[in-house]
Amino acid sequence: MTGRDNGADLAPIGNSPVVILVRPQLADNIGACARAMANGGLFHLRLVAPRDGWPQPKAWRNASGADRLLDCATLHDTVAEAVADLHHVFATCPRPRHIIKPVLTARGAAAELREICTRDLRTGVLFGPERAGLDNDDMAHADALVRYPLNPAFMSLNLAQAVMVMAYEWWTAGEATPPHELMTNETDVATKAELENFLTHLVDQLDACGFLRNAPKRPGMVRNIRHFFQRGEVTEQELRTLHGIVTELAIGRRQLGRLERE
Amino acid sequence: MTGRDNGADLAPIGNSPVVILVRPQLADNIGACARAMANGGLFHLRLVAPRDGWPQPKAWRNASGADRLLDCATLHDTVAEAVADLHHVFATCPRPRHIIKPVLTARGAAAELREICTRDLRTGVLFGPERAGLDNDDMAHADALVRYPLNPAFMSLNLAQAVMVMAYEWWTAGEATPPHELMTNETDVATKAELENFLTHLVDQLDACGFLRNAPKRPGMVRNIRHFFQRGEVTEQELRTLHGIVTELAIGRRQLGRLERE
Repeated sequence: MTGRDNGADLAPIGNSPVVILVRPQLADNIGACARAMANGGLFHLRLVAPRDGWPQPKAWRNASGADRLLDCATLHDTVAEAVADLHHVFATCPRPRHIIKPVLTARGAAAELREICTRDLRTGVLFGPERAGLDNDDMAHADALVRYPLNPAFMSLNLAQAVMVMAYEWWTAGEATPPHELMTNETDVATKAELENFLTHLVDQLDACGFLRNAPKRPGMVRNIRHFFQRGEVTEQELRTLHGIVTELAIGRRQLGRLERE
Repeated sequence: MTGRDNGADLAPIGNSPVVILVRPQLADNIGACARAMANGGLFHLRLVAPRDGWPQPKAWRNASGADRLLDCATLHDTVAEAVADLHHVFATCPRPRHIIKPVLTARGAAAELREICTRDLRTGVLFGPERAGLDNDDMAHADALVRYPLNPAFMSLNLAQAVMVMAYEWWTAGEATPPHELMTNETDVATKAELENFLTHLVDQLDACGFLRNAPKRPGMVRNIRHFFQRGEVTEQELRTLHGIVTELAIGRRQLGRLERE
């Protein structure tokens, strides 16, 4: 099981936090956690006293190819042993009570982990068992707690979902993808001159067919058409298509006019 | 199944986006999606042509109490029918190709959804089937695509994980939790005067026991001790404990001194 190598080629990217699953109960979840880690660019998995032992084939079956993370996972008896070589440890905890501790959002934790990792320090994040979560002794090993902002009326978060949110925030904290952009693929966003060229073509044809024959209303109508085509970015390819549509519709109309005159 | 009511009391919060699962394959995943939706405050689920029909008991078994979302889920034959009453539709898509479309990150999409929902418009997010994702015809129903920033070397995202990330971003976009705060529970952060009071106590005792007897080094040592105790916020309760520790250690030392003199 641990020797096979038919999963994705997942080599660690830089210095990234260790995910430490404390007393995980279900091998399915361990596999799903590995998959979520790979999604978010986390590679180092440690298991503290998994309930049903380790390794377990079910984990590999549920990892969707993140085999390498499971192959390299290390097994530990206690949280103390699992965090011994780390410099900073965060503990995920949905409802901390009676504890004096810094509390971070997942986003805040990701930003701090990025910053700490940049300093070549080793970091880790503790995740508790499915049913009960981390206990107070587990949390005492952590520098800070991580509490996700989520619906307080429904806090029951699946273990792999908890790992997913942290992995996603870790990856996003190192990304600079703009929140909104126009994907143009093979074409480019048109310039205002190209758009104007099309609008001139359109208005000419609308004048020719009589659509704009109401002279007092004409300026307002032209302005409204202009507003519509300005609403979002337009690509050069789309302008070519729009030119074609106007030309073809106008040809049909001219042919109809010729037929009617015959 | 759909009539039972032993799950969490999940009433919709305000105007929130509809989650539309397009041709989902596994009932387990539909249940896990409902759970993730509840975590992030999304309540409206629509299913387009689920492969194995609907309802399916497995979905309820995997929803961890988010039964109400499944009870209220609606079934549709086509994407067109599922989005007919909505004003804005986003489509999640890991690898869009040959499409001219705005592309949002999950965070960008959440911000826009919040903004659109504030205007009392109805929104929805399409999620494709597990294996293949949305096809080009599905995506043509969307105003914009949503592409999560994730590890390009491992893009295989579980359906419920995809819903989780979107639900988490939706909830977070409406939250103002500070990214880092000190949870003090029953006590309060100490003032600088309270901290100074403790430091005076400590330095007095260190003088008394001879720890600071090296006069030339004394100012630097005191400064270093001060730096250590200033590193993070300290609570009043912790200061009381620290006072107690110093007092008790000093008593022990004094008693030892007395025993030695006897």
